[in-house]
Amino acid sequence: MGVALRHFFRLRVGQAETILKKPRLRQQQTTCKLQPVNSAIIVAAGKGARMGAGTDKLFLEVAGRPVVAHTWQRFNDAKCIGEIILVVRSGMQKNFTELAAKYRFQKPFHIIIGGAERQDSVSNGLEALPPATEIVAIQDAARPCTSEALIAATIDAARDTGAAVAAQPVTDTLKESADGKLVLRTLDRSQLWSVQTPQTFRVEVIRRALAEVRRRGLVFTDDTAACELIGQPIRLVPGTAPNPKVTVPGDLPFVEALLRSV
Amino acid sequence: MGVALRHFFRLRVGQAETILKKPRLRQQQTTCKLQPVNSAIIVAAGKGARMGAGTDKLFLEVAGRPVVAHTWQRFNDAKCIGEIILVVRSGMQKNFTELAAKYRFQKPFHIIIGGAERQDSVSNGLEALPPATEIVAIQDAARPCTSEALIAATIDAARDTGAAVAAQPVTDTLKESADGKLVLRTLDRSQLWSVQTPQTFRVEVIRRALAEVRRRGLVFTDDTAACELIGQPIRLVPGTAPNPKVTVPGDLPFVEALLRSV
Repeated sequence: MGVALRHFFRLRVGQAETILKKPRLRQQQTTCKLQPVNSAIIVAAGKGARMGAGTDKLFLEVAGRPVVAHTWQRFNDAKCIGEIILVVRSGMQKNFTELAAKYRFQKPFHIIIGGAERQDSVSNGLEALPPATEIVAIQDAARPCTSEALIAATIDAARDTGAAVAAQPVTDTLKESADGKLVLRTLDRSQLWSVQTPQTFRVEVIRRALAEVRRRGLVFTDDTAACELIGQPIRLVPGTAPNPKVTVPGDLPFVEALLRSV
Repeated sequence: MGVALRHFFRLRVGQAETILKKPRLRQQQTTCKLQPVNSAIIVAAGKGARMGAGTDKLFLEVAGRPVVAHTWQRFNDAKCIGEIILVVRSGMQKNFTELAAKYRFQKPFHIIIGGAERQDSVSNGLEALPPATEIVAIQDAARPCTSEALIAATIDAARDTGAAVAAQPVTDTLKESADGKLVLRTLDRSQLWSVQTPQTFRVEVIRRALAEVRRRGLVFTDDTAACELIGQPIRLVPGTAPNPKVTVPGDLPFVEALLRSV
């Protein structure tokens, strides 16, 4: 926590002019009342290797603006979120500050540099949270269709239980295959859920979970899996609308249709 | 097989005028050469309970025509398919013959009444296959985006192995939950595939598999699962494009976008 705060203040001092919005609000938070707040971490530091070389999937245009600008807009507009941390690749800060200006995102935000693995990026984001943060919603930047209602529902569930994740019952038939060629068996899907983001936590829970992941030298791409490691109960929060991740170019028509249908 | 053939001829005699197209072609097949052919069964007899009361999802308009008219068109146009069996709910025959007229489907087809369970509908469809059928591709009517290339690939794989299924690697993180509220564990998805249709078989393989299902009094919603029961190897045939099933109204924008993007 000490390290986290030092890192937080170092970032604030070094980058305050370019990345800190509404400094008066932030000052109030850090110096006096510390009313509990909910914050979001939007993880935008992935390489997006499946998109093909030279393409940053987060900046592909869909429904009139870059993918990540939709995601950011959802969290900018969500009344349940007080501040947003964007975790980006080194060298991309300017692209994100330009987005904020272009789309007039009013909610306080920070731009933070990500790490080698997703969990390192999330850890960097956690270090940059406002100290008053009680609940943090961690979001894939590549999921532009996440609704405010879903964000709020995961926050409520995380406040109750400590950890929560947006989820949908599996409807596809699933097969296991050892070699990717022949079917071994059919899975019983009646107890299976696919999970998306936000994955939302009491801050001390996800900090403890990621510390344990580091201690054991593990690599996780899923933040709730880190919570399973420390025996933390995790609530499934059913989402009704599709909440897809842009992974390959073929995902874009679907996402476009969803964004335009709202 | 005897029962199947009797049923087949009974249907032919009783419904020949309304449902049999290109009778000369059919006569050649049944009386002399019996060149091996590939046929399709389009299963359109489901109740679609998740769509809500009074809505037949197969007749919802998407990209300018009913869902099932897209599916039928794909099989109508597929050069690898000789004849199509449509399995429908009782009372719906007229709706389907009207579709054929409206969209000018030229390929020979039969309309057959389905049974109580999906497996009963498939069995009825198998009984109505042209006797020369070597390979049968079984298709959900509610999957309108299946490509000709995918149909052909499952036919080739089924000819080699006896059974094949359109499949895609699982990319979502999957959780198991006993109560639908709390997460039990994260699944290792590296060996998991979601499967769609066509599910394609040597005819004698799927007949034997469904006979075993009936003998044991089981109910399966997945035809390849029936093949697992008899130890039949099943090939996964990776599809590159999304091949979704229309299950709830929220699926339609995605399907619309996919159909319009081709």
